[in-house]
Amino acid sequence: MAHQITSASNPLIKTLKSLHAKKGRAETGLFLAEGARLAREAADLGVWPQTMLYAADALQRPQVRDLVNEAERQGVRLIETSQGVLAQISKRDNPQTVIGAYHQSLAPLEALDGDVIVALEGIRDPGNLGTILRTADSVGAGGVVLLGETCDPFSVEAVRASMGSIFAMKLARASFSDLTRFAKTRGAPMIGASLKGAALDAERAVPARVVVLMGNEQSGLPPEMEAACDLLVKLPMSGRADSLNLAIATAVMLYDLWRRRGYDGARA
Amino acid sequence: MAHQITSASNPLIKTLKSLHAKKGRAETGLFLAEGARLAREAADLGVWPQTMLYAADALQRPQVRDLVNEAERQGVRLIETSQGVLAQISKRDNPQTVIGAYHQSLAPLEALDGDVIVALEGIRDPGNLGTILRTADSVGAGGVVLLGETCDPFSVEAVRASMGSIFAMKLARASFSDLTRFAKTRGAPMIGASLKGAALDAERAVPARVVVLMGNEQSGLPPEMEAACDLLVKLPMSGRADSLNLAIATAVMLYDLWRRRGYDGARA
Repeated sequence: MAHQITSASNPLIKTLKSLHAKKGRAETGLFLAEGARLAREAADLGVWPQTMLYAADALQRPQVRDLVNEAERQGVRLIETSQGVLAQISKRDNPQTVIGAYHQSLAPLEALDGDVIVALEGIRDPGNLGTILRTADSVGAGGVVLLGETCDPFSVEAVRASMGSIFAMKLARASFSDLTRFAKTRGAPMIGASLKGAALDAERAVPARVVVLMGNEQSGLPPEMEAACDLLVKLPMSGRADSLNLAIATAVMLYDLWRRRGYDGARA
Repeated sequence: MAHQITSASNPLIKTLKSLHAKKGRAETGLFLAEGARLAREAADLGVWPQTMLYAADALQRPQVRDLVNEAERQGVRLIETSQGVLAQISKRDNPQTVIGAYHQSLAPLEALDGDVIVALEGIRDPGNLGTILRTADSVGAGGVVLLGETCDPFSVEAVRASMGSIFAMKLARASFSDLTRFAKTRGAPMIGASLKGAALDAERAVPARVVVLMGNEQSGLPPEMEAACDLLVKLPMSGRADSLNLAIATAVMLYDLWRRRGYDGARA
């Protein structure tokens, strides 16, 4: 049975609103993901929220009704509420009609599998991080590793930019020495993006298994990480721009590496 | 001679603050660009702001002093002010020490030159638009064309994301029929990104001159635009992600086309 809450001052609603701040996420271990479609995709991956809120009139849509019924069978705490409360929780004038509060979940590094692993050193911008998760998912990567001090992958902005890939992509935190060991164990060379690198010949073959290492938005990779890479690649640049946006550079790297493997695993 | 203004209620300061809103930009024809480095890059392209504000103590940095002196010779209105006022204008706690209010400038479509022209139909997100300007600049594109109802390329968010490429890239607005005529005149095929397209064989040669047409974030290209394209390209996709972020998809398209031309014009 769903509880009905229409007061924004209800303690539970206050807790959900607190998930916009890092402190609220740290204290609860939860994060917000918005939209019935996202909740459906997560459910298809076996991921259910701790709490699911929905607008009462959204139950008229069969997809939402099915989702809520299934969530109830899964033991999800259900809250039927108003558009106004949903707007307050999402901090949007036109909120989605379903919002879930999910458990934050990081994978151990060893659980990452698949040919391509993307490692991000000190990434600052949650929009970039979410977009990189979405892109890593799109090229069939095996996971994303966060190194050093990074922005929070469970911030609302990162989750929104990931467009659901926060659920589909394995995400780990690791030290650089652990990552180096992991790459060695897998026989995967580490390929770093760096202005000190050289453009990769378009015809050059690259092993299927790689770890792609990207530095942060301001300063790129630190020298000791560059030194540990098996290959440093500089992306071709023209015009007056100094550099690419980090999420763009990551995507250009990932798609170029995937092309060298004939886009294996691409959907028809 | 610089004026000194330290009151945030000064009418000029109020006008500059209004440039965060579309109305303020429309009424004045101006936009904000932040940072001494950006102002230097714009100046190197011959673009000077109508008004330049700087923090008094920033004059201790020789680059800022030279920039301000040069701006004075160029007849730029100079305002020496406080960090507090700069913070209010930029709406940032840690503002840049130099902020310029520049004239919005669109190029006529015919002024766009260079092999690759990027056309964006109905783009919604200013961060995407700014990032695409930066990427188009990075691949040496000849300009960006806005079609239909789009977000404002002169919003603070778009300008920030462009990282200076708002000054370096020619930007035009056009109707789709004008764009089609323009492409024909130049002998440039129109290549559209579309899920209805096919993956482009990695070895297939593509003419140097192209117009790359990208649809909007929600709905992609409308059918009549798809029908007018000489070639529809679907980017390879794997995993569970439905689609790429628009700025990412544009970058993957542009870098893939550039690769087919041997990255001609890339910096060493």
